[in-house]
Amino acid sequence: MAEFALIERLRRHVRGRADVALGIGDDAALLQPPAGEQLAITADTLNAGVHFPAETAAADIGWKTLAVNLSDLAAMGAQPRWCTLSLSLPADDPSWLEGFAEGFFALADRHDIALVGGDTTRGPLSLSVTAIGTVPMGAALRRDAARIGDEVWVTGMPGEAAAALALWQASELPITVSANDGLRETLRQRLLRPTPRIEAGLRLRGLAHACVDISDGLVSDLGHICARSGVGARLALAQLPISAALRSTADARIRQWQVGGGDDYELCFTAPRHQHEAVRDALAFAAVEGYCIGQIEAGQGVRVLDEAGCEWQPSRPGYQHFG
Amino acid sequence: MAEFALIERLRRHVRGRADVALGIGDDAALLQPPAGEQLAITADTLNAGVHFPAETAAADIGWKTLAVNLSDLAAMGAQPRWCTLSLSLPADDPSWLEGFAEGFFALADRHDIALVGGDTTRGPLSLSVTAIGTVPMGAALRRDAARIGDEVWVTGMPGEAAAALALWQASELPITVSANDGLRETLRQRLLRPTPRIEAGLRLRGLAHACVDISDGLVSDLGHICARSGVGARLALAQLPISAALRSTADARIRQWQVGGGDDYELCFTAPRHQHEAVRDALAFAAVEGYCIGQIEAGQGVRVLDEAGCEWQPSRPGYQHFG
Repeated sequence: MAEFALIERLRRHVRGRADVALGIGDDAALLQPPAGEQLAITADTLNAGVHFPAETAAADIGWKTLAVNLSDLAAMGAQPRWCTLSLSLPADDPSWLEGFAEGFFALADRHDIALVGGDTTRGPLSLSVTAIGTVPMGAALRRDAARIGDEVWVTGMPGEAAAALALWQASELPITVSANDGLRETLRQRLLRPTPRIEAGLRLRGLAHACVDISDGLVSDLGHICARSGVGARLALAQLPISAALRSTADARIRQWQVGGGDDYELCFTAPRHQHEAVRDALAFAAVEGYCIGQIEAGQGVRVLDEAGCEWQPSRPGYQHFG
Repeated sequence: MAEFALIERLRRHVRGRADVALGIGDDAALLQPPAGEQLAITADTLNAGVHFPAETAAADIGWKTLAVNLSDLAAMGAQPRWCTLSLSLPADDPSWLEGFAEGFFALADRHDIALVGGDTTRGPLSLSVTAIGTVPMGAALRRDAARIGDEVWVTGMPGEAAAALALWQASELPITVSANDGLRETLRQRLLRPTPRIEAGLRLRGLAHACVDISDGLVSDLGHICARSGVGARLALAQLPISAALRSTADARIRQWQVGGGDDYELCFTAPRHQHEAVRDALAFAAVEGYCIGQIEAGQGVRVLDEAGCEWQPSRPGYQHFG
């Protein structure tokens, strides 16, 4: 396998940044972090057949590989800057790599993120990214900062990715070609091309207390905030709208997908009640929908209340890999 | 697979550092880089059956996974600080993970490196590390800084790892248990537990011009320096001693291993002739052997001269994965 040729092929796509003193091609890259800021760093791996269906198009894999990592930076309120990519490929496949690069750099370029290192190795298809951003000292949105009385918010429409996955598993949604139906295509895009809520994370600095991205499922990830903050939370399903795309499935599992489904990469955050309007404005500036869906309370764990106000038990606590 | 339990198991081993404001457990870690320094960042993946024999002991895999990345930072003259680890495991295997952690953190703790993020996923055994260090502005040892007339140096004894690999492939060296013979065990350790030359890299700041670590093979990696610096190099085999362990193999391939074998993770660097004694002192302070083995010259590529001063052709240009 021509490792160097593969790296070269990726390298052609890389855009420069003023804070990259030395990019790919040496033993390590050299980066210039902004003075007075902290680094936020995260690493996530996607494996074929575990984190995405093996037949997923290369471009969609490329997008998602970066998206799941940028979503973690968004959840910290960090400005993404750089990333590394470790790519294991079963065979030297130039057209696959071109497709992968197309999706990966479409997202990287949208947010001006420089690929500064990594390697390509032979092996079962696996993609590891480490993404690095920066955040002013003390401004990061942490999981451990929720306070009793905070409102609980969520961006976008959690559950759509889980719906797409369920439909695909039931052979009711294609994964490699567009769906004929517009609403189905919406669901499909939500699974294949999640949007990391970077701008929302940046706008929520100084407003939100705690924040997490929804990769495992709303209840599960809000549960991380509760555990780390030593609090409980109450979610009201009545305050969580059902999107047209979700409604169109006419499936009994819609609420389950919303609170238990993973892979959405929306943000769930808490903010003081008196910041309610400021949070609305921040989300509007970031051009993302957002809903106030509950409240932080004393205790532990997440209680979900149905439309009648009765406690409601999600059938599965969080996202388990489908593989 | 209990992903969270696996992460917890690794996390127990993690030591704190003053420059880690928030470690594993949030969406991202928060790090405090030293003022006025640049970041050096590198990423390398090891796959079972490609980068190490599949039966290699977990502790040896753990050590090597980190070592190959630290070696890249050493080659930049960077001070290693933090790393992330993405670990794909075929099955939930607590004893394997304990072994892996033992080797990984033995090296991490030796150099006070904090594991600050990563994930564990189900999949064929694969290990990706991104390592980050820091270096004062402009002090990094780059591949593109060799100048005509520079002396070419190498640390340690390149070739020993390649010898161990060849002996293992010929069923003459065990991989999972110690060798009976002391010299054979030396070779085995060089393959399984390479020593990243961090202290040497730090001491060579301000002395060396260009530097690279030997992962692909001496000629191949020195070739990277030549290509990036727009120069050629001449190596004299007579100046490259043959260690007792290498000599004990009584193998006709010893010189091939020395100039063409990979996996050594020694440093190859260039330095001006007038710094010869200062380089000797720096290596002595770093407690590592070093040999002046050649010279940078006009032209391109690496010429190897045998003991008689005749041009000598390595049979293979660089390390190709054995898998």
